[in-house]
Amino acid sequence: MNAIRPRLLRAIDREPLDRPPIWFMRQAGRCLPEYRELRAKAGGFLNLVFDPKLASEVTLQPMRRFAYDAAVIFSDIPVVPQALGQQLWYEEGEGPRLGPLPDLDAMAVLAPKVGEILGSVGETIRLARAGLEPERAVIGFAGAPWTLATYMLQGRGGDAARAVARTRAFTERAMVERLVDILAEATASYLIMQARAGAQALQIFESWAELMPEDLFERLVIQPHARIVAAVKAAGVTAPVIGFPRGSGALVERYALESGVQVVGLDVQAPAALGRKLQQTVAIQGALDPLLLRAGGSELTRRVDGLLRQWSGGPYIFNLGHGVLPDTPLEHIEAVVSQVTGWRGA
Amino acid sequence: MNAIRPRLLRAIDREPLDRPPIWFMRQAGRCLPEYRELRAKAGGFLNLVFDPKLASEVTLQPMRRFAYDAAVIFSDIPVVPQALGQQLWYEEGEGPRLGPLPDLDAMAVLAPKVGEILGSVGETIRLARAGLEPERAVIGFAGAPWTLATYMLQGRGGDAARAVARTRAFTERAMVERLVDILAEATASYLIMQARAGAQALQIFESWAELMPEDLFERLVIQPHARIVAAVKAAGVTAPVIGFPRGSGALVERYALESGVQVVGLDVQAPAALGRKLQQTVAIQGALDPLLLRAGGSELTRRVDGLLRQWSGGPYIFNLGHGVLPDTPLEHIEAVVSQVTGWRGA
Repeated sequence: MNAIRPRLLRAIDREPLDRPPIWFMRQAGRCLPEYRELRAKAGGFLNLVFDPKLASEVTLQPMRRFAYDAAVIFSDIPVVPQALGQQLWYEEGEGPRLGPLPDLDAMAVLAPKVGEILGSVGETIRLARAGLEPERAVIGFAGAPWTLATYMLQGRGGDAARAVARTRAFTERAMVERLVDILAEATASYLIMQARAGAQALQIFESWAELMPEDLFERLVIQPHARIVAAVKAAGVTAPVIGFPRGSGALVERYALESGVQVVGLDVQAPAALGRKLQQTVAIQGALDPLLLRAGGSELTRRVDGLLRQWSGGPYIFNLGHGVLPDTPLEHIEAVVSQVTGWRGA
Repeated sequence: MNAIRPRLLRAIDREPLDRPPIWFMRQAGRCLPEYRELRAKAGGFLNLVFDPKLASEVTLQPMRRFAYDAAVIFSDIPVVPQALGQQLWYEEGEGPRLGPLPDLDAMAVLAPKVGEILGSVGETIRLARAGLEPERAVIGFAGAPWTLATYMLQGRGGDAARAVARTRAFTERAMVERLVDILAEATASYLIMQARAGAQALQIFESWAELMPEDLFERLVIQPHARIVAAVKAAGVTAPVIGFPRGSGALVERYALESGVQVVGLDVQAPAALGRKLQQTVAIQGALDPLLLRAGGSELTRRVDGLLRQWSGGPYIFNLGHGVLPDTPLEHIEAVVSQVTGWRGA
């Protein structure tokens, strides 16, 4: 059995490995020409996301091209707000847009049914799992409650949305706390469905947690993540949870100890020593700079080697510190995947 | 003597105090109606900055209105690039703009003379010092080398400029390192002049150090700050240096140990426990959220009390985690200054 157990899960289980597993956030999608071609044919972005055949195809495209150890389901963060009744659309060349915030009581009723509402994503996972070698894992994912709330409160992402959401967390604290708790329940329902459909690990993306004061971070990031992890476990799901609290700075230490996630994703800033400290409690994932991946050259090779050396002594998943940038040369991706999969220094 | 020694300096010297000193980054300027009136009369922003009578008046305006323990010289970060020969102008409603990057050799020749070139700022400091009670300190300031380089390489600030600067740090490493070293020398010259003119503490603002990988942070932030501190000390200046590496996350620990600054400014995210750890080595300053100062209300009162309680056991300067936002209600500032100056819990 062990021979075909995915390397990703063996790393998370702290098995000694000859080299760490590798995958990249946003490895599927805009950086690949075959994706851009498929998207042009499919029409709107949501047509891709909600068609299991197309979405599983997009999920598998990078797996054919590169020796990644895991596929991540092609989807997008705001599908959960949409499942909760908030209007969602995409403006060409910009990010997602959302309509007015639905009534909280109405969302609370829908929250436990979000897995069912987004059932087509389960079919995407089944198709992707069937199309992938057993030693390569399928990762499900969801946006984190605070990140979702940021989009939902302002109707869009970005720095201005973050400032608005943080301000409302100060001025309408009870409302924001309730919203985040509803979103935690919805996210748990969504992730449990994904695990039951075959996702072998579940990543929570907290994209908008930069520069939050500690008390807000505790209540709006750590607590909801802990609720999600507890609900996933209570449902009998054994797939490990990867939490990625991007931009959490020194607060990542409390996050690793208190959220209950089995893997902590680190952003580009994470100090080497801090990563080693976290590895005593959790597996870590990250943290190559996507700007450096795009830039390439000898600095890239040197940095990849540095990351492998500094963290391969403990449970480590090689990844970026944020998503692949759309205009990243594919030969840079190929070079890094080769360097990591060919490495034997652990 | 001790009775009139500024509270700010006594805090930095680790004297036990009944309550911490307080000042706010960007306390002078756009948040005050008397400033907006004066600026409308003065014409361009640089007319204000380089006229010692006007600049000292702007520096003192907040000191008349609020019981701040320190005045910070009214100036702007890109005056050093201008002194090094890069064209500087302001677009109405936007930030500073800079022309093409000057030749590095030419800038290297000018760097040690920047204090002299910006001599009018010394006169501003003399006038401000003369207009202020002895128990209130005058703080000089300069932009940090990496932040200056970010502006200089892209001709403007912002997220896109940060990405461009970080990319060039990867692809043109030798050039960027030399630029930052020249800027460290220029900044040291500028700060030494300010101290000799009467500035009693010197703050280095690193506004654009968010999400930098550790190796870049070490070479482009910590090292140049250490060079500046060493040069200031070598010149016989006793004024302490306050380093503010905004967004440095968990790397702030290395910064506090290795940069040589006597005070570390903390951003809004700094965990309580980390601040207490840093206080064993340095004084700390910060970290109230400017969004909360603007929002006001009972959350503001509660958070100010929390900051006072969590950090007043060690050397602490009450401040924001970033600058005052222009549309901050003045009664919120008044309330926080009263709360801090009236506090006796230390």
